[in-house]
Amino acid sequence: MVDTRFSMSVQIMMSLAYHGDELMNSDQLAKTLKTNATFVRKLVSRLVEAGIVQSFRGKAGGIKLAKSPQDISLKDIYLAATCEKTLINCHKKPINKACPISGCIEDVIGEIVVGIEETTKKYLLNKKLDQLMKKVQHK
Amino acid sequence: MVDTRFSMSVQIMMSLAYHGDELMNSDQLAKTLKTNATFVRKLVSRLVEAGIVQSFRGKAGGIKLAKSPQDISLKDIYLAATCEKTLINCHKKPINKACPISGCIEDVIGEIVVGIEETTKKYLLNKKLDQLMKKVQHK
Repeated sequence: MVDTRFSMSVQIMMSLAYHGDELMNSDQLAKTLKTNATFVRKLVSRLVEAGIVQSFRGKAGGIKLAKSPQDISLKDIYLAATCEKTLINCHKKPINKACPISGCIEDVIGEIVVGIEETTKKYLLNKKLDQLMKKVQHK
Repeated sequence: MVDTRFSMSVQIMMSLAYHGDELMNSDQLAKTLKTNATFVRKLVSRLVEAGIVQSFRGKAGGIKLAKSPQDISLKDIYLAATCEKTLINCHKKPINKACPISGCIEDVIGEIVVGIEETTKKYLLNKKLDQLMKKVQHK
């Protein structure tokens, strides 16, 4: 199942969009998210791997968006954050061989899982990071 | 988050569809699902409340589908099984008042949650129980 890593990753991406070309580091993000820096670094490393966050090493290093917010979709963030976990899963009860339904339930649910993921990703592809930024009240 | 109650409810509905007008009871379903009858009864009572399963009391009582399988959608089962739980949730970290992103993240994720639920329900509405039954190998 998809846990709260998606919403936390969205928050990180929005924070980076807010800061523009100004580099941020994991401690700053951890403060914003009220969580620990190690967890933030894990989330960030996935966003970097996905090519939507850029990381600069060294003393003056930090991270920023790798693309402009209108070119980053929520699907990009979803794929990075969920690591192929799905929104719905089949239960893991052992198969009852005497029951024809039990024998095919994994297959049946598997198809529904694929359908839900495809539909969700299509929806998220059309939502861009810059649209979310309209909700931010600038100081 | 939506747990495995959805897939278990789908399995119950498929078992009832397989048995047609022949009444089933929670013990039979619990055997099929390799789980306990109390848990099955909880799932069943939601399906009854949703109007897609019919319950008959008494010694010769039991349950069966309340409608024909082509008139039962996966959305009906989803709504009954999930009890308004959503596929994605916002993290519950406290708001950092100094951060404008932290202040609006619940609102931002809330909109995405609504979008994903609507898209998913639309997808599930078009999938009917009789379609799933085509996967069942009849003995």
